[in-house]
Amino acid sequence: MSQSERDKTMMMRALALAAQGRYTTTPNPNVGCVIAQGDEVVGEGFHIAPGGPHAEVHALKAAGARAQGATAYVTLEPCSHYGRTPPCCDALIAANVSRVVCAMQDPNPKVAGRGIARLQEAGIEVVVGVMLEQAKALNLGFIKRMQTKMPYVQLKLAGSLDGRTALANGQSKWITGEPARADVQAFRAQASAILSTSATVLADNPSLNIRNGQLPADILDTYPQPSLRQPTRVILDKDNKTSPDAAVYQLEGDVIRVVDTPSNQVWPDNVQEWVMPGASLSAILRALAEHDIDKIWVEAGARLAAQLLTESLVDELIVYQAPMLLGGDSRPLVALDGMQRMDDAPRFQFNQVKVIGDDVRLTAMLSEHAVTTQEY
Amino acid sequence: MSQSERDKTMMMRALALAAQGRYTTTPNPNVGCVIAQGDEVVGEGFHIAPGGPHAEVHALKAAGARAQGATAYVTLEPCSHYGRTPPCCDALIAANVSRVVCAMQDPNPKVAGRGIARLQEAGIEVVVGVMLEQAKALNLGFIKRMQTKMPYVQLKLAGSLDGRTALANGQSKWITGEPARADVQAFRAQASAILSTSATVLADNPSLNIRNGQLPADILDTYPQPSLRQPTRVILDKDNKTSPDAAVYQLEGDVIRVVDTPSNQVWPDNVQEWVMPGASLSAILRALAEHDIDKIWVEAGARLAAQLLTESLVDELIVYQAPMLLGGDSRPLVALDGMQRMDDAPRFQFNQVKVIGDDVRLTAMLSEHAVTTQEY
Repeated sequence: MSQSERDKTMMMRALALAAQGRYTTTPNPNVGCVIAQGDEVVGEGFHIAPGGPHAEVHALKAAGARAQGATAYVTLEPCSHYGRTPPCCDALIAANVSRVVCAMQDPNPKVAGRGIARLQEAGIEVVVGVMLEQAKALNLGFIKRMQTKMPYVQLKLAGSLDGRTALANGQSKWITGEPARADVQAFRAQASAILSTSATVLADNPSLNIRNGQLPADILDTYPQPSLRQPTRVILDKDNKTSPDAAVYQLEGDVIRVVDTPSNQVWPDNVQEWVMPGASLSAILRALAEHDIDKIWVEAGARLAAQLLTESLVDELIVYQAPMLLGGDSRPLVALDGMQRMDDAPRFQFNQVKVIGDDVRLTAMLSEHAVTTQEY
Repeated sequence: MSQSERDKTMMMRALALAAQGRYTTTPNPNVGCVIAQGDEVVGEGFHIAPGGPHAEVHALKAAGARAQGATAYVTLEPCSHYGRTPPCCDALIAANVSRVVCAMQDPNPKVAGRGIARLQEAGIEVVVGVMLEQAKALNLGFIKRMQTKMPYVQLKLAGSLDGRTALANGQSKWITGEPARADVQAFRAQASAILSTSATVLADNPSLNIRNGQLPADILDTYPQPSLRQPTRVILDKDNKTSPDAAVYQLEGDVIRVVDTPSNQVWPDNVQEWVMPGASLSAILRALAEHDIDKIWVEAGARLAAQLLTESLVDELIVYQAPMLLGGDSRPLVALDGMQRMDDAPRFQFNQVKVIGDDVRLTAMLSEHAVTTQEY
């Protein structure tokens, strides 16, 4: 294997390791690390959860003395600062690795390149950009939050092949099937937060939590029930229309209610109230990002979908379609109205198309994010 | 290779050969034939066009004396009757093949099994049903016409990800892209007929013909310009709203206008007028099938789509979607209105999902047709 082939192969392995953290590392990024002597892997690891060791530390520990003179493959630039753990750069330097290959720089513009510089100052050869696109795809939320202080927003839509969610009379049962609903659970489980509205809570009384039994089997292998993290549920309830007995408030996990005025009801301990009178969606998302929420899964109705799209706040569409037609007078997927020019239509780029049970799932991203994502 | 593995491998080859006739054999079926001595192919061929030799004849000619004692793999039961060519059964018997493997029986209930019986009477071992599903997928139109005297109807729909074809104000340019339009050409080229309406002719003045330059390259390799067949164009024009100068009437190829009363205009020679006062869509389709039209590509508006769906006349949906959203007040993909129960919604089964340029193409069939179709 040439060095460049080996670099790619090892980085792919590091990326697959990193992806194993995708249900647990938030608000930290997914990072994987492989330490190799030539073609031989001598240590590997990934970041599992906040507060725990970084990927490099796991891999160096596994490599032990064999890290000396080795190449470390890391999916993200090693950190150079003291956070909850000491800087990984120092650990790599102390272990005497001779070469570090990173997929990408730290997306935080304030620290980008510092880790690389520190390694280089210590005489270590550093290569950056191997499998860059794939590395970005792993941390879309973290990268967006670091670079823009806004979260990465995934808008889930589900309907018929002609883009409808219910008949005119409101009937909507059994459009998409059980496998599609299980797939939704996997997306929820990877999000930092799930965003919905009082209208959805009142109409459907959804739980919006991760239900262990409904997750795909491969998730359960990696994350048995006790380690499942419940994403924060965020309910837009400016007029205080919901009540504490709604399912979404009664289940384990943090909930944030965003309101215009304080509620006079008594809420369970896990429910916070954010009083943000007249706040725009953009302001609310920004506030969530300030609280380290970086990947938001939106599961609500046609109206919130339209508002988010109108304000250009959607980064990715995840559209489930059932192979049926509901017709021209049935309810729309998004309630965008009054568009005058085709150029005003929100446009995305297809990323992946997949058959899920009897349904299909189409994912489309803003072209700025569009990358070849892989399923790990 | 075991005999059963060899039978499948050879039949796959015969199916791929058969598929080479898919732009030209109508109203005949696509048929391929491989003659083999053990693992060695000694002759092969496919039916190219009506009036020309059947697949078996091509293959036997290529095999010559080596057909003696060989196995013949045929994608459809060999014919036992004198049509424009002598019966293939007789040719196989005369060539002294010792075994015939068919993918499927003749779909015509009046003759199904006769060819098989004739071969067996001649002492030839006959196996039926190898790669049956794939063989059916090749001749959906022919099979449906033979079995039901109705054509197989493919409804083409194209719109946004939320199932819309135009803004409320009518703007609709550039929803799906050039690769999707080229893909449509390939479907048109495989149809016996293209069905549209006076409304579409008046609104868009479409040509609805096969345009050589826009066909995918692999088609052009097989079918250079002079051998391209123009599918019959069928225009529903009961009130005689269209005029002879419309593009659809001015281009090479047969056109049928279906009207309630005779027109008093002068039409080009290639335009027939079928006077069918008050005829239902079902009656019109049945009449087309009587004229040997068996695979109909529908390219019209939301209203004809709705009528066909309401009368359960659609066998397959081909839906092109662009990664954009046009909103709740934009124009619907199908004008089905007033549905009261989810059980009334037309349901299909996804067959294939494919990215085409910037767009996706979803194909869905009635579950009775649903087969694993392959792209050859």
